[in-house]
Amino acid sequence: VRQAYAHSLVENPLQGEILRRVLHGGASTSRARLTQSLGVSKSKVAFEVRRLVAAGLLAEDGFADSEGGRRSSLLHVPHSAGFVGVFDLGATSTDVAVTTLSSDIVAHRSEPSDIAAGPRAILERAVELLDELLLEIGAHREQLVAVGVGVPGPVEQPTGRLVAPPIMPGWDDFGVRAVLEEEFHAPVAVDNDVNIMALGEHARGVGQGVENLLFVKIGTGIGGGIVIGGEIYRGAQGCAGDIGHLVADVHGPICACGNIGCLEALAAAPAIVRAAEHLAREGSSQFLAERLIAAGGLEARDVGDAASRGDYEALTIIRDAGRLIGQTLASVVSVLNPSLIVIGGGVSQIGNALLAEIRTSVYKRSLPLATRNLPIVLSQLEPRAGVIGASVIGVKSVLGVPTS
Amino acid sequence: VRQAYAHSLVENPLQGEILRRVLHGGASTSRARLTQSLGVSKSKVAFEVRRLVAAGLLAEDGFADSEGGRRSSLLHVPHSAGFVGVFDLGATSTDVAVTTLSSDIVAHRSEPSDIAAGPRAILERAVELLDELLLEIGAHREQLVAVGVGVPGPVEQPTGRLVAPPIMPGWDDFGVRAVLEEEFHAPVAVDNDVNIMALGEHARGVGQGVENLLFVKIGTGIGGGIVIGGEIYRGAQGCAGDIGHLVADVHGPICACGNIGCLEALAAAPAIVRAAEHLAREGSSQFLAERLIAAGGLEARDVGDAASRGDYEALTIIRDAGRLIGQTLASVVSVLNPSLIVIGGGVSQIGNALLAEIRTSVYKRSLPLATRNLPIVLSQLEPRAGVIGASVIGVKSVLGVPTS
Repeated sequence: VRQAYAHSLVENPLQGEILRRVLHGGASTSRARLTQSLGVSKSKVAFEVRRLVAAGLLAEDGFADSEGGRRSSLLHVPHSAGFVGVFDLGATSTDVAVTTLSSDIVAHRSEPSDIAAGPRAILERAVELLDELLLEIGAHREQLVAVGVGVPGPVEQPTGRLVAPPIMPGWDDFGVRAVLEEEFHAPVAVDNDVNIMALGEHARGVGQGVENLLFVKIGTGIGGGIVIGGEIYRGAQGCAGDIGHLVADVHGPICACGNIGCLEALAAAPAIVRAAEHLAREGSSQFLAERLIAAGGLEARDVGDAASRGDYEALTIIRDAGRLIGQTLASVVSVLNPSLIVIGGGVSQIGNALLAEIRTSVYKRSLPLATRNLPIVLSQLEPRAGVIGASVIGVKSVLGVPTS
Repeated sequence: VRQAYAHSLVENPLQGEILRRVLHGGASTSRARLTQSLGVSKSKVAFEVRRLVAAGLLAEDGFADSEGGRRSSLLHVPHSAGFVGVFDLGATSTDVAVTTLSSDIVAHRSEPSDIAAGPRAILERAVELLDELLLEIGAHREQLVAVGVGVPGPVEQPTGRLVAPPIMPGWDDFGVRAVLEEEFHAPVAVDNDVNIMALGEHARGVGQGVENLLFVKIGTGIGGGIVIGGEIYRGAQGCAGDIGHLVADVHGPICACGNIGCLEALAAAPAIVRAAEHLAREGSSQFLAERLIAAGGLEARDVGDAASRGDYEALTIIRDAGRLIGQTLASVVSVLNPSLIVIGGGVSQIGNALLAEIRTSVYKRSLPLATRNLPIVLSQLEPRAGVIGASVIGVKSVLGVPTS
């Protein structure tokens, strides 16, 4: 299905594996170590490393410590090997970045935006920002070897198109990948924003080395990203992990999706804000009432501020949200039996009470076996998890071996 | 972790891939076709095929059709290559079988049993049955190249031990694999019974060629088996797919697991029977009342019989169970976004109304995108799905390349 830009940086799977190990192995990867960990012959590794050096994808600097014999030089991927262009498009913000092939951020810009402005306007501005960043670091578009993109909706992987994205009017069936490949003449990888956050945490954050990871984003909506065996698990239509629309209370309110009692309608930022404004208006929280008058409206973080000042009613709002999220996650734990749950998104910063309540509810409701070793932790990379994850999918797309 | 019997039938990954293709390719696999589909050179394929023939794992019979040039002989795995011993241990029955390496059943015996009798008694009788089957087909234990086992509880994969199995008193921490490897001097693979049913349907049943499959067993309990990318997905502790203990009704009865309103407590066979006996006693169903008096108790299938005779109250019991199962599966669909749901287990045979109601509830409650292409079908292999799946895990365990 991919045509024009289905190229790869490597000529064979061994080269891909070597690059992957150098990219993730930090500063201590040598030929000797590669030979050892890859289980192939020294001469094969030496041959492919030589070809990668000749292609400008690997460089040598310094020598690894050695107890005698010929010392093995350290390998790294030089900046001259190229950069990755990153677009992390959110419902209300656009993040643009340039990273190295190791997904280290070289330049990063974030600005408010409205995804409902439609694909042309959003992408035009994003591309403009990327060009500005490239200019700042003295690089140019030809140095981008890949582009990674996160979008707040489900993506059909074979085509890189958005499929029926609920909060992205005007984007349905829009071919993000095709448009950006045309623009940059480089391979473009596109995925759902929560999926790339999950992958970011797995590749560079708190989920490193973890087999099965669930990332939960709590913000304007609630979404889940699943990593299984180091890869994003997308399901048949690319909408796996859609935990925001699990039923949290059959007697709950009607959700924007049309169903009743979805978790998102009960525990995401708008529900928290609604409860807080109710408290403020009925006079149950002086702090929130004052903040409402001063700002004309409340945000989820105001509830956190109130709770941290000892406001019991505000704390109850946070606890209620945490309990509903935890009860719903308990179901997800029974189905997926993950090794780790990472909580992220704007609302996750609202205070420790949220995480504590989520943990309590999950441990109470799940089978003991599934929670025997189940850390539930806050995101380590936020607010850069999406940018790093998008960079990782971009790099992945050019380390595979061309199949044509 | 595996020691004594961690041997493989093959010497390298290419041999494993060749055997796998011959085993699943039916009667039409030739060297030419292997060369084409594996994308390696003709001479490499010829070399490894020669070695596999010499080892007695492949044989040639007849010639593939050819439009000229040298004809390519057809390959198959001969019975003399060996058999697989299969134990499918259920809560109330023991199935024992001998299959070919292609998982065709050569001999099969099923008898009632009580898993609570404990591992020694159950396994002793199962081994006795397997010896009888071998005698019947004129084979002996040395011809078993692998053993596959299904058990009604969670299995820790690295060790082949049972972990906190709720309905298997006396089996906790019991090393099924170690005991049977000692007995048969062959590699033994052990997995949860629903997992192997899911794999059986994927390998040889309605799920062939399907990427992500959810198997739902509705019987004395309710369990789920997940196949992702052709492999059983087990999760961190081997208890993924535990859908019987998802909350179906927060105001429901207390489940055997101690939580409230689990799906299993509301829609598995015991709940259906309880509802039916209530109908019979209060005189709402003449058919069920007569059957209750005649037999002294009811079974789930009696409810199906009553419904098929036009008993509206009995039909309502089935519909209620189907609705609860469907509503719960809708959550699983949102998390996993599978390509196919297969419904099996004794209760699945209760009548079309159950499947119809499950379908309606799933389609009503899930996001349209996730159900756009989601067939929900009855098991095709039952009651042999578990036997075939256990054979498949046995074969898988000896087609891998030894890592030591």
